[in-house]
Amino acid sequence: MDFDVSLHVIGVVHSTHSSLATTPIQSSLNRAEHASIEIDDQYADGLAGLAGFDYAWMLTWLHAPGEPPAPAPLRHVPFLLQRQQRRMGLFAARGPRRINPIGLSLIQLLDVTSPVVRFAGVDVLDGTAVIDLKPYVTRFDRPPGEPRSGWFDQIELTDGLTPADLAPPQP
Amino acid sequence: MDFDVSLHVIGVVHSTHSSLATTPIQSSLNRAEHASIEIDDQYADGLAGLAGFDYAWMLTWLHAPGEPPAPAPLRHVPFLLQRQQRRMGLFAARGPRRINPIGLSLIQLLDVTSPVVRFAGVDVLDGTAVIDLKPYVTRFDRPPGEPRSGWFDQIELTDGLTPADLAPPQP
Repeated sequence: MDFDVSLHVIGVVHSTHSSLATTPIQSSLNRAEHASIEIDDQYADGLAGLAGFDYAWMLTWLHAPGEPPAPAPLRHVPFLLQRQQRRMGLFAARGPRRINPIGLSLIQLLDVTSPVVRFAGVDVLDGTAVIDLKPYVTRFDRPPGEPRSGWFDQIELTDGLTPADLAPPQP
Repeated sequence: MDFDVSLHVIGVVHSTHSSLATTPIQSSLNRAEHASIEIDDQYADGLAGLAGFDYAWMLTWLHAPGEPPAPAPLRHVPFLLQRQQRRMGLFAARGPRRINPIGLSLIQLLDVTSPVVRFAGVDVLDGTAVIDLKPYVTRFDRPPGEPRSGWFDQIELTDGLTPADLAPPQP
């Protein structure tokens, strides 16, 4: 079932990345890089109190407005498994080509000076539309213990990893 | 800026809750309760590999299709601060009445038997539309150390808390 909604762009990311192939795949793998969100003036009052948090969830719309989303096949080889050529379900992977292209980035808040949010941990293109910001609350967002992370527990994750680093093996 | 998109309902939650006022406010505060997601048959193949994870992020659309979202004021008193009557920015709070009503629930995966996902940690109404599932990956989703969680660090959070428990103080 599908339904039509109007999404509101609450802000826009300013980052140095203009190509997906060379954009780090997760903010946690690119903690050293800084970027900013420029919140739309009409929503800037919503930032009150955010400076008291060290981290936030940035929800993004991963396609330009109007561009039709192109989800990956339901079973596909994630970027991170291209060397192994293992297929996974879309809902067991974190790639950007989703059924609904909503990105979830854990950003480290550096400075909140309305209407600009400076952050560390960059995994999105310049110009990406931000559709929500939620403060990271340890009590809500950290599961107890050391949860199993499926196939991610079996691969090496290096800082700064991009899709271009992960070409499939040559025949 | 707004833009129109068509969202795809990848599944529907079956829970015991039919009233927001008596639905726990966060899955982490209601870990003992179980519920399930029935994934739409056309997307069920996307679950492959998910059983290897202990937790997942469930993204939901918090309003029934067609119903116009009613965001909270940009500065408002969150449920959890009703006793103190402190106002916070919408983006420094975790309430469901957002500019774009997208919910983020950290669910504990109990069983993935396609097309049904059984989980623990329930903070959504019966019938809620699921728009994405992303596996919880500790390396991506757990910030280092003990991050500051703003005003949440100053309040008591008890298991099973619902909006109905948090009536404003009587005059």
